[in-house]
Formats: sequence, structure tokens, C-alpha cells
Amino acid sequence: MNHSQLFRNIKKKRSFLCVGLDSETDRIPSSVKGKDKVFEFNRMIIDATHKYAVAYKPNVAFYECNGASGWNTLQKTVGYIKETYPNIFVIADAKRGDIGNTSKMYAKAFLGNMPFDAVTVAPYMGEDSVTPFLTYKDKWVVLLALTSNRGADDFQYHDEDGIKLFERVLSVSIKWGSTDNIMYVVGATRAEMLKDIRKIVPDHFLLVPGVGAQGGSLEEVAKYGLNSSCGLLVNSSRNIIFADSSENFDTFAGEKAKEMQAEMEKYLIERNLV
Amino acid sequence: MNHSQLFRNIKKKRSFLCVGLDSETDRIPSSVKGKDKVFEFNRMIIDATHKYAVAYKPNVAFYECNGASGWNTLQKTVGYIKETYPNIFVIADAKRGDIGNTSKMYAKAFLGNMPFDAVTVAPYMGEDSVTPFLTYKDKWVVLLALTSNRGADDFQYHDEDGIKLFERVLSVSIKWGSTDNIMYVVGATRAEMLKDIRKIVPDHFLLVPGVGAQGGSLEEVAKYGLNSSCGLLVNSSRNIIFADSSENFDTFAGEKAKEMQAEMEKYLIERNLV
Repeated sequence: MNHSQLFRNIKKKRSFLCVGLDSETDRIPSSVKGKDKVFEFNRMIIDATHKYAVAYKPNVAFYECNGASGWNTLQKTVGYIKETYPNIFVIADAKRGDIGNTSKMYAKAFLGNMPFDAVTVAPYMGEDSVTPFLTYKDKWVVLLALTSNRGADDFQYHDEDGIKLFERVLSVSIKWGSTDNIMYVVGATRAEMLKDIRKIVPDHFLLVPGVGAQGGSLEEVAKYGLNSSCGLLVNSSRNIIFADSSENFDTFAGEKAKEMQAEMEKYLIERNLV
Repeated sequence: MNHSQLFRNIKKKRSFLCVGLDSETDRIPSSVKGKDKVFEFNRMIIDATHKYAVAYKPNVAFYECNGASGWNTLQKTVGYIKETYPNIFVIADAKRGDIGNTSKMYAKAFLGNMPFDAVTVAPYMGEDSVTPFLTYKDKWVVLLALTSNRGADDFQYHDEDGIKLFERVLSVSIKWGSTDNIMYVVGATRAEMLKDIRKIVPDHFLLVPGVGAQGGSLEEVAKYGLNSSCGLLVNSSRNIIFADSSENFDTFAGEKAKEMQAEMEKYLIERNLV
């Protein structure tokens, strides 16, 4: 999927919502039956929320911690989305990144062997750790820039002559690809920084975690982050998928997603994007 | 395994060699038979090299790219090492790191559910992305500091008032744990930097990749990196495991490992460490 196809889907659904599938085994409602409960849960969440979402983001850690069977669940989940709702963008939230010959294997794992559209990558090891992910046509790297957690303060603000590390990550890495294959993680808990970030990457998509459970404001994110082709995917995980633990959990998840879509639609209208 | 147990094993084997199991499926010699060829290959490499090595480091990407069955191979490999050679230190080279609740799941995957002694972690997301790995007794984080690849130049030297990013990673993160549960990746291709690095982390173990295929010198690494309890694990992957592709590949791998052990023994004797 390229940049304009993604924007087309956003306009069609009047939404820039990404639903994070942080499907922690211990929190799956007891009403969910089947041999692979995590997959069944995901399938029900996806069916209940797909009208309001343009993207899904399985958080790979929550699958990996179940070993080989967790990898099967991950593979089935991305397969289900792509077969059932082919226009939905699917991000492997994996935070990978290693020397070139190793990143090539990670890229193969997510973009070659599985039908993910994108994978999140950590920038610490620089260009040759990122570019192997950019060799797949119509697939994306989502590079960490400014994250939503407290630990972002430890290194991401390290400042060389007025240029913070996350700003350097942005300005250096835009040369590695294009607005069709790189987007950036910018945490909603740092929404005020989006103003400066948009000066460096005015046209790129940003994946924004941290709205909801982590305390970020959707209004602020939209205010500072929207650009002429939307340019935002705002992620919500626990607030949607674990909105309720009864047997009607999927209906509640759908309601939560719908609420966020409605708010997003408002901002898209205000900016004349739909 | 704690710091003094690791040093004891080093003295016993007169070696600080870590063998990297970057077991690329396409490079497994055709003589290797069995349902799980990668595991059979690993098993033969381990049996041929264990006398000369104090550590193994499966590179998770090379397993992950084979999906769920790759995860089985990884699990069988670490299981085989720990059952057969329990004193050998085993590192999951995974380069993970995410917000706290997610890192907790990655830690569970490698240190809870599998018997790895350590996992490599990327520092970009800061303290709360690293500390969940430190909650397992006698298990370790191997934190990226200065890597061996060309891309290390992109961000790791970013300099705030004379303090480079990798130096800040070292000086900030030593407060998160101890010499018994944190070690650092410092690439052998940057051996001259070890002098300055030892000023910041005099007592920590360093995991040093990049000797051999990537061009780093063992002599230089030993010269600048050895401390009073050795403090080094030097990794070699392709140079050992793919030393030969005939049916006697394991004998050749053993010979290569023995050569490196002999050179290491020389440096350990010179420094009165054995």
C-alpha cells in the first residue's frame, strides 16, 4: 500500500484510527472459546472494529511470549485481516533493528513471509539496520522517533548544537526512503512536540501511540499533527480491545472504536480533508 | 549465572569466546540430515565447539524468519545447550526494547519461558524499556552501546557537551542494574574506543561482536578491553559456524574455535588472569 492509497482509505472511512492488538493472553475474556483463544479474540475484535479503523497493529511481544504457538497466532491474525479486509494497513509492532544481514532476515520474517504492510524499527544502529526493510515494494518502515514512554527522556532529547537525537533521527532518515515507505513513531504524550516535528517531516505519516491508556490527547495530536494528506495514524490498544471483559466485549470494543472514529471525523472535516 | 560464575568458567576454559549461532537456513551444509536441519546443524556445531567457548549467541532473526518452526528450533537449541553444557552462558541476540508492559512480555519470552541467560536490548526507549529484563534473578541484559556496523556513525556519536550518545547510554544505564546483570555491546570494529569506554564501565562485561567477518582485531580488543575479571565475551559467528561447507563442517568449526581460544588464552596469561 502506498501513501495515496492509505490516504484514500482514511477519507473513505473518515478515520485515522489504528487498533493495537496487544492481546495479552491473561486478559482474554473467559467467554472466548476455541483452540487458539488469542486468535478468536482478535478475530472478534477485528470484525467489530474494522468499519472504524484503517489500520491494525499487533504488538509482537504479546505473541512471542507464547513461543511457537504465539507466532502461529500472529500469522493467522495478519492473514485474517488481509484476506477479509484487504484495504486495511497492518503494522507488525516489533521494534526490530540489527546489522544489515540480520535486519534482512527480520524484514523477510515480517514483510516477506507474512503479509504485514509495515514493521516498527528502532533507529539506534543507523542506516544499514533500517534500509533492508525498505527493499519490499509498497511496504513500510515505521521508525521510532519520539516515543510515548517516560524513558524517552533518557536519550531521545540528547542535544547536539540544538538538534535533539529524535530530530536527528528524523532529518537523517528521511534520506533513506520516501513518504511512500517511511513513517515515524511520535508519542501522543509529547503532542506539543508535533509542531516542531512537522517542520522536519511535513509530509510523512506519523504513527501516534499513547492516546488513551497512556494519557495523550487526540485533539492535541490532530491539532499539531494533521497535514494535507492526513499524515496521522493514531493508535489505541487497551482502551479499545479491553474496553470490557464480558461476553459482549466485542460490541464494547466496536463502540469505543466508533467513538474515536467520530472524533477523528470531526477533525478531518475541520481541516477540509474529507 | 552471575559475574563471578562467568569469570570462573572463563578461567576454566581459558577462553572468552562466544560462538554466534547465525544459522542461516540456506547455508546449512547439504550433509546435515533430519527433520529440523537448523537444529541438527546447531547441535553438531555446539558439540564441536563447546570445549573452546564459554557462551553461545543464537541470532534470533535467523530463526524468526522461519516463523513458528524457527521458534521451535530456537527453543530446542537453547534447551540443548543448557541440558548438555549447563555452565555455558546463552545469549538471545534479539535487540528488543519497548514500553514497560511490552518489554515485560519480551523478557518473559526469552528469560522466563526459555532458559536464556541474557538478551540483547536496544537502549533508544530508555529506562522503562530495559528494567523489565532485570527482574529475573541471575539473568542479564546486554545493552547496545557502540555497535560494529557502519550505521553506528549515524546516531551513536551524537555529541552533547562532549558526551557521545553511546557514552551517555553507558553512564546512565549503569544505575539501572549492576555488574551482575548488565553487560554492553561494543563492536570490535571500534576497538580503539574501548579505552574510553573502560573509563565509564571499568568492571562490566562487554559483549564484542565484529571480530573476523566484520574485520575487528582480537588483539586490539583484548589490549583495550580486558579487565581484572576478564570482562569480555568476544563473539564470532560466520567465521566459525560456516568455516567449511563439507560434511566435516563441524570439525572445521571446532578448529576455528580452538584457534580463537588459543589466542585468547595467550592474552589471559599475559594479563595474569589464568
